Amino acid sequence: MQADPTLITPVILCGGSGTRLWPRSRAGRPKPFLPLIGDGTLFEATLARCSAQAGFCSPVVVTGDAHLPHVEAQLGADPAATVIVEPSARNTAAAIALAALRLPDDAVMLVCPSDHHIGDCDAFAAAASAAARLASEGWLVAFGIDAKSPETGFGYLKRGEPVGDAGFRVAAFVEKPDLARASVFLADGGYSWNGGIFAFRVKDFLAELRAFRPAIAEAAQRAVAQGHADGRRFYPDAAAFAEIESESVDYAVMENTARAAMVPADMDWSDIGNWQALHVARARDADGNSTAGAVELVDCRNVLVDSDGPRVSVIGLENIIVVVDGNDVLVTSADGVQKVGKLSGAVNQ
Amino acid sequence: MQADPTLITPVILCGGSGTRLWPRSRAGRPKPFLPLIGDGTLFEATLARCSAQAGFCSPVVVTGDAHLPHVEAQLGADPAATVIVEPSARNTAAAIALAALRLPDDAVMLVCPSDHHIGDCDAFAAAASAAARLASEGWLVAFGIDAKSPETGFGYLKRGEPVGDAGFRVAAFVEKPDLARASVFLADGGYSWNGGIFAFRVKDFLAELRAFRPAIAEAAQRAVAQGHADGRRFYPDAAAFAEIESESVDYAVMENTARAAMVPADMDWSDIGNWQALHVARARDADGNSTAGAVELVDCRNVLVDSDGPRVSVIGLENIIVVVDGNDVLVTSADGVQKVGKLSGAVNQ
Repeated sequence: MQADPTLITPVILCGGSGTRLWPRSRAGRPKPFLPLIGDGTLFEATLARCSAQAGFCSPVVVTGDAHLPHVEAQLGADPAATVIVEPSARNTAAAIALAALRLPDDAVMLVCPSDHHIGDCDAFAAAASAAARLASEGWLVAFGIDAKSPETGFGYLKRGEPVGDAGFRVAAFVEKPDLARASVFLADGGYSWNGGIFAFRVKDFLAELRAFRPAIAEAAQRAVAQGHADGRRFYPDAAAFAEIESESVDYAVMENTARAAMVPADMDWSDIGNWQALHVARARDADGNSTAGAVELVDCRNVLVDSDGPRVSVIGLENIIVVVDGNDVLVTSADGVQKVGKLSGAVNQ
Repeated sequence: MQADPTLITPVILCGGSGTRLWPRSRAGRPKPFLPLIGDGTLFEATLARCSAQAGFCSPVVVTGDAHLPHVEAQLGADPAATVIVEPSARNTAAAIALAALRLPDDAVMLVCPSDHHIGDCDAFAAAASAAARLASEGWLVAFGIDAKSPETGFGYLKRGEPVGDAGFRVAAFVEKPDLARASVFLADGGYSWNGGIFAFRVKDFLAELRAFRPAIAEAAQRAVAQGHADGRRFYPDAAAFAEIESESVDYAVMENTARAAMVPADMDWSDIGNWQALHVARARDADGNSTAGAVELVDCRNVLVDSDGPRVSVIGLENIIVVVDGNDVLVTSADGVQKVGKLSGAVNQ
């Protein structure tokens, strides 16, 4: 039985509280809800990629209390869009379980993080269709993001034998590798980044969750059974949900199921995981510079400047990032971006 | 006849409008009047070096309308201090002429810029005494600042035969050299920087000015004769003063007189001519960093951060300067400081 790919339900995950894009991203103004690339926010862009115009069903957004005002402000007018308000943060296995338990058994979910950038929306749509077709045949499908560099911050998917007309079995899930292994993966060509985008048919996902993590499945089911709706919001029961162990869908399900597949996706993807990643994802001039706000650059190359107001003048620098936000100024080397989250300003928000 | 060195009259020049310390220095808040090093301003430090406590007469300050409010706010209570208000800017030959024409013929003037830093005040006092003794014997005396590096931004004095017990004839005035020549001067050891500090007996200075620049001397004399006092201010006649050609005292007098002398001065001097010079003059920690304001540095070396309010966080950088002032943020390499004055923010004040 092959599901109609136009009947894919986006399940959009709005959790977490990153500090790696501080000071632009703040506790009260998290990354998905900022216009980091282009005019819209990353959350809005995620919605647009998965909209009715793009051929998708109305989305289910899974988020927490802290993000709820942002979600509702940016969710738009779709009356069939729903929001599941997690009583506490329990990672992606539980979040996806909540959505699955609110959907029909035969629905195909497309699980999407809300804080990534995808430059090529046509490639995304094609991969989503391919993944949904496999999901409708019972596969649990991960997007395998075309690896462009030996990143050590991502998990990798090792490609196995072909399944369907555009997918492959996952031969192995590989944890974040060191640089040497990542370089081997890149040279090998048979490895993709695991970008956290998945297609699951509801009944298959729940069956595998019940098989491998019965406690999570059972508590999620109680949380939904004892939950209540309020307009388009749904509130799972807090006590039941609190019992759940935090675990990613990768660990809980994907690494255990015998039906793990992947579809390759070369779609100009970035997790915008730090300021340097944002620099790479933004439009740059011939010198590699990218500016937002009132900026004057003299003798600069590969410089990112992002100011919310003050004029920023930069002379004679390469590979640096300058961010002005409110009462904070961040100046970092491209290599230093990994330490942004540890700055006292980022830690003590 | 040897004048009493304790009867030296400081002539403090407060002219010019630099842009090289923008954005801290601004059109309405010029460099001499900023607390760039330590608690006081450069002007206040100049006054303190030349105070009654330090054995000097009350000063004559030569300045323009624009700087007058700053001068009077920082001049202190000395009732015998006077301020000559230049009707227009005509460079140092004219400014010194105005002061000379308001002083007794036998007075010894110590001409001091008001925007330099001198770390060793005892060495300054000793050099001032030595210079005044030579001036009282009819020499026109420049301070020869001990050259510490092959600077291309200064004029140099070539040391000639000894005069008196601590001075030398000036064998040559050398315009700003290129780096190769400056390096030769430094290796030679017989060259000093011309720091723009001079000791002149009034009658000798005026005689030489009349001999070599009679038009300047004559117009300055008319400007003073037709000027008027107002409390401790003196206003030279604007029309007469406007006739004067702008010329430095170096060109107009020092390079022409046969009585040019110099006294060596090793006194931790800096003209604070740009942000890098200020960095060098400020106290630095073991990593060469110097900060003012709310600053967090991670993995930084030889970084200067100066913020008037916002918190500045810097990661993984060397040899850079970050200045936050009002609605401006400047980030420059150490080499880039020469271009600060050409930034649109500095030019269009």
